[in-house]
Amino acid sequence: MTPEQKLNSLGLSLPEMPKPVANYVSYKRCGDMLYLSGQGPRRNDGTMHVGKVGKDVTTKQAYEHARLVALGLLAAMKQAAGDLAKVEVIKVLGMVNATPEFGDHPAVINGCSDLFVEVLGDRGRHARSAVGMGSLPMHISVEIEAICRIHP
Amino acid sequence: MTPEQKLNSLGLSLPEMPKPVANYVSYKRCGDMLYLSGQGPRRNDGTMHVGKVGKDVTTKQAYEHARLVALGLLAAMKQAAGDLAKVEVIKVLGMVNATPEFGDHPAVINGCSDLFVEVLGDRGRHARSAVGMGSLPMHISVEIEAICRIHP
Amino acid sequence: MTPEQKLNSLGLSLPEMPKPVANYVSYKRCGDMLYLSGQGPRRNDGTMHVGKVGKDVTTKQAYEHARLVALGLLAAMKQAAGDLAKVEVIKVLGMVNATPEFGDHPAVINGCSDLFVEVLGDRGRHARSAVGMGSLPMHISVEIEAICRIHP
Repeated sequence: MTPEQKLNSLGLSLPEMPKPVANYVSYKRCGDMLYLSGQGPRRNDGTMHVGKVGKDVTTKQAYEHARLVALGLLAAMKQAAGDLAKVEVIKVLGMVNATPEFGDHPAVINGCSDLFVEVLGDRGRHARSAVGMGSLPMHISVEIEAICRIHP
Repeated sequence: MTPEQKLNSLGLSLPEMPKPVANYVSYKRCGDMLYLSGQGPRRNDGTMHVGKVGKDVTTKQAYEHARLVALGLLAAMKQAAGDLAKVEVIKVLGMVNATPEFGDHPAVINGCSDLFVEVLGDRGRHARSAVGMGSLPMHISVEIEAICRIHP
Repeated sequence: MTPEQKLNSLGLSLPEMPKPVANYVSYKRCGDMLYLSGQGPRRNDGTMHVGKVGKDVTTKQAYEHARLVALGLLAAMKQAAGDLAKVEVIKVLGMVNATPEFGDHPAVINGCSDLFVEVLGDRGRHARSAVGMGSLPMHISVEIEAICRIHP
């Protein structure tokens, strides 16, 4: 199965990429490296999941939010590479909008890592940090950025 | 106009690079990639803009702080590349020292992104994350790091 | 002296690498670049140093925690490169689990930077950001990730 077929078999489809509203871009290619801007958990209607994980949002809910972010990152990878089978995920920075007492960031960012591996197989396995931010744009619960490699 | 002339026409000049006071360097070149250490909003007299954005510092003030950080990053790029026309900005991580309730990080980090594009044109356009930190060194309001490419 | 001999002369030995318990890896090589996952201050018995720097943990204690993280990162470098003499540290992101009022992050992350330079010499000198997180996994005091280059 291609990554696109795997997405299909999971009942998932890639969202449309929103246009950045400022002087930056959703991704930047540099040789065979691909740098993806941080994305949030955007629903299909364009609204975002918000709230502090550990207070307004449970770890389980935030796992689903991270999975939704991963879908948006896959959409950016697809647009940049044409074909998801060419994409290898190298490094993920998973940022959780958490309370100061929260400690379960890996369980949240697994939502992203799991989808990458489900869809891309071994090429979805990456180095990663999963950490807690003091705040995030528009109060989103999770933001994730990634560095990928595009194979020929 | 060269980037250096554009800086001039904006009434801006590159600051002198402060020496890091520890076992790290202001930037590191690796092939044609350039990794810039995080910088803060340093005034010409060497003092820094400090305070929590969303409490002590307004979004509009913090935009100006981010613009000042960008000027310091351009100084590092110039020192590394010799000529700003060779520099393409690939990825920016914009870190705002904000209250837990703050949500307007993109409007702050635009201060950096806007100056990069004003000075470097299309080569200033980058992938980016703009996020909120729990705290920053010396209580500075904004810290920004960047990855660039140096063209021949 | 080789880096391995220097470690020896400092009375240090590389810890065993713990296995990541999720869909990510401790490091990922990409050409001659090496991306290291964020690590925490892990004691030899597998437990971690925890607490908020600026409240539960002093800057001096956190310096030692950052040094311990560096040892774990060196273990990952050694496993990836075979030989530490081939490794050049390019970029470090040092993340301190600090109170909102903390401002001495560089003095903490120096614990990592100093050990890199003690062990790797000039190749240990890197670009860096040292910043404060709202929270960290399992309440660890410090987490550090790094990008390295592996020389032939």
